[in-house]
Amino acid sequence: MHTQQATIDRVFHALGDPTRRAIVEKLSEGPISVSHLAKPLDITLAAVVQHLQILEKSGLVHTEKVGRVRTCRIEPKGLSVAEQWIEDRRSLWQKRLDRLGHFLAEPDPV
Amino acid sequence: MHTQQATIDRVFHALGDPTRRAIVEKLSEGPISVSHLAKPLDITLAAVVQHLQILEKSGLVHTEKVGRVRTCRIEPKGLSVAEQWIEDRRSLWQKRLDRLGHFLAEPDPV
Repeated sequence: MHTQQATIDRVFHALGDPTRRAIVEKLSEGPISVSHLAKPLDITLAAVVQHLQILEKSGLVHTEKVGRVRTCRIEPKGLSVAEQWIEDRRSLWQKRLDRLGHFLAEPDPV
Repeated sequence: MHTQQATIDRVFHALGDPTRRAIVEKLSEGPISVSHLAKPLDITLAAVVQHLQILEKSGLVHTEKVGRVRTCRIEPKGLSVAEQWIEDRRSLWQKRLDRLGHFLAEPDPV
């Protein structure tokens, strides 16, 4: 349970930064090398590497070094963690609305 | 388009903080007054109010003052923004995998 909470914390912390979301947006188009990723982002390679480390620890991105080139790709596990958290909130909220609806639909006691 | 980007930024920034996520978690069980919300969170009322302002601006929470009591409830619009962003990333990534699958399934040219 605590591990799950830590995972959720890492994923939402990672997605809370606009540069890291821009990296995830770019990677959802397909795998790309770190240097190609850095170019349009207009930040240093060192900053990109730091963001990638946070994204990798959160399970949103996977990087792999082949020869001298490090390639990044999206890791769907991290997105699922965020999606599940949102879905759980929505589902609880919806159940409450449904209960309210049933209550309002009940005839008044006579 | 820029407004949409600003909304996404606000929602993910709001969800990036563990206390704000704890507030959303609590509110998905049902509406609650600000003072009741503050109690189990073990932070000052002023800090809760600050977090609520960020959550309200992002469209994740709605607060309303009736008499002397301010009540908070979840606002599903904000959750939908985050969900849609994740869904868009997943869908792009899935399309890419499908194209790869079709490519690999094609017979070799003879």
